[in-house]
Amino acid sequence: MQKVGYDCRVMGVPKTIDNDLDKTDHCPGYASAAKYVATATMEVYHDAMVYDTPMVCVLEVMGRNAGWLTAATALAAYKGTGPHLIYLPELAFDMDKFIADCKKAYKENNGKLIVAVSEGVKDKDGKYISEYGSDLAKTKDSFGHAQLGGTAQVLANVLKDELNCKTRAIEFSLLQRCAAHCASKTDVEEAFTAGQKAVQFAVEGTTDHMVAYERSEKDGKYFCNYILVNLADVANTEKEVPREWINAEGTGLNQHFIDYALPLIEGESSPPIEEGLPRFAKLKKVLATE
Amino acid sequence: MQKVGYDCRVMGVPKTIDNDLDKTDHCPGYASAAKYVATATMEVYHDAMVYDTPMVCVLEVMGRNAGWLTAATALAAYKGTGPHLIYLPELAFDMDKFIADCKKAYKENNGKLIVAVSEGVKDKDGKYISEYGSDLAKTKDSFGHAQLGGTAQVLANVLKDELNCKTRAIEFSLLQRCAAHCASKTDVEEAFTAGQKAVQFAVEGTTDHMVAYERSEKDGKYFCNYILVNLADVANTEKEVPREWINAEGTGLNQHFIDYALPLIEGESSPPIEEGLPRFAKLKKVLATE
Repeated sequence: MQKVGYDCRVMGVPKTIDNDLDKTDHCPGYASAAKYVATATMEVYHDAMVYDTPMVCVLEVMGRNAGWLTAATALAAYKGTGPHLIYLPELAFDMDKFIADCKKAYKENNGKLIVAVSEGVKDKDGKYISEYGSDLAKTKDSFGHAQLGGTAQVLANVLKDELNCKTRAIEFSLLQRCAAHCASKTDVEEAFTAGQKAVQFAVEGTTDHMVAYERSEKDGKYFCNYILVNLADVANTEKEVPREWINAEGTGLNQHFIDYALPLIEGESSPPIEEGLPRFAKLKKVLATE
Repeated sequence: MQKVGYDCRVMGVPKTIDNDLDKTDHCPGYASAAKYVATATMEVYHDAMVYDTPMVCVLEVMGRNAGWLTAATALAAYKGTGPHLIYLPELAFDMDKFIADCKKAYKENNGKLIVAVSEGVKDKDGKYISEYGSDLAKTKDSFGHAQLGGTAQVLANVLKDELNCKTRAIEFSLLQRCAAHCASKTDVEEAFTAGQKAVQFAVEGTTDHMVAYERSEKDGKYFCNYILVNLADVANTEKEVPREWINAEGTGLNQHFIDYALPLIEGESSPPIEEGLPRFAKLKKVLATE
């Protein structure tokens, strides 16, 4: 369009619950999904603990190559009601080590064990764990990615044999990316502002850039700046959870991650409620002649 | 205890998200689970509809023999953002009819289809659909019931072959019974009152009874009376969704169910929130000598 002299400005506004975009502190959508994942994990923890029988739950969280969303289960652990073990796709998954980790934690916690795994955990040869015992992952989605699923079920089956107890695989599935009833107010407000800033920048003459979040402080508290980054610098890179934020054993997150995530999930947001259920906005189709 | 003259009074306080107890209009816990199921279904509906590619989702809801909780997805349909087809265990499940129903609805809705099924749907011979293509259901839980699961996956696999499109199985799993962050205020208040009434009745001399809910009206609005029913009359019976509340085709609920369920899910309740996450009550162990 620039070649033919058409005055068009192109602005990127990020969004992904995967939180894996480079050059931005975090991505719109991530914090709300993280808040839901942490909340649901705390609830599953309580459900598992009320019985005095052994109980093993394997929670499967979205994330092919980046474990940001699975890491959000560490927020539940930080509250004392979360997974005993967390596995991210950033580190190679070793089945023998996994079994040894689980046996140890199962014993230490008197027959209770909650494990969180990213759907995309892979062994050192790059083979998805979901492919180990399942033929569910044979199809590909519209981006050509292998459609994952079944990681938790494969691992729950392994633990059932190894620990000889009841195991349950829970896949948060679509629920984690559409739980608008449990959104982060911080996330919702930042997302609106990101869109607004993109329009403002475009009107002012900017093009070929993306609005990004820069973490800052104001009066000793978390504060978000909106900055511009080159679209070319963002495309085709994936930001992973830093190794220094994962514990030495590769089974949990440390305080670095908690400090990163806590301000993002602050505040509650939900659609308006009518008759006990959320009311979603509806866009009306308006004919060009109206 | 009565035989040896020990003055002990036994009161039942019901609770089950299955809502299948006889002699009570509904059960504590049901409305909160129903509210979550309806809310999550509405959210999944929106997630499925934002793409312009074909999308088939099969939602699996808890319920072995009674479809009360699966019926709650009809509240989402009542709002215009719910399943096109709903199958309860009250009616025999016929795979050929299911495939025909789905093909018709898939076509009518331009390649979008959301189906809700109870985990416990069975064919006319009493065989669980989860057993059709899966070997997941071979174990039994501590009550000796077959541990179900995989119904949605079996049906999603069938639809994938029949409709030749992307399908997704979503199991609400434990999430539906522990979603305290999305509880019904009506349910929570009634549950507290049921416990309170049980203590009051016992102190006043009642024994061998259960507190039950009786639906009533006050000023033209839903009102709940707390009554006493014989424990013996409640035990070992299961209350199913009435046939008259299910549509003629066996693929949805009619206004009878909506009128029944809407007042129960009224009002929002959640644990207090600290740092963006729910704070759960902790019971402190107190030594007898303290």
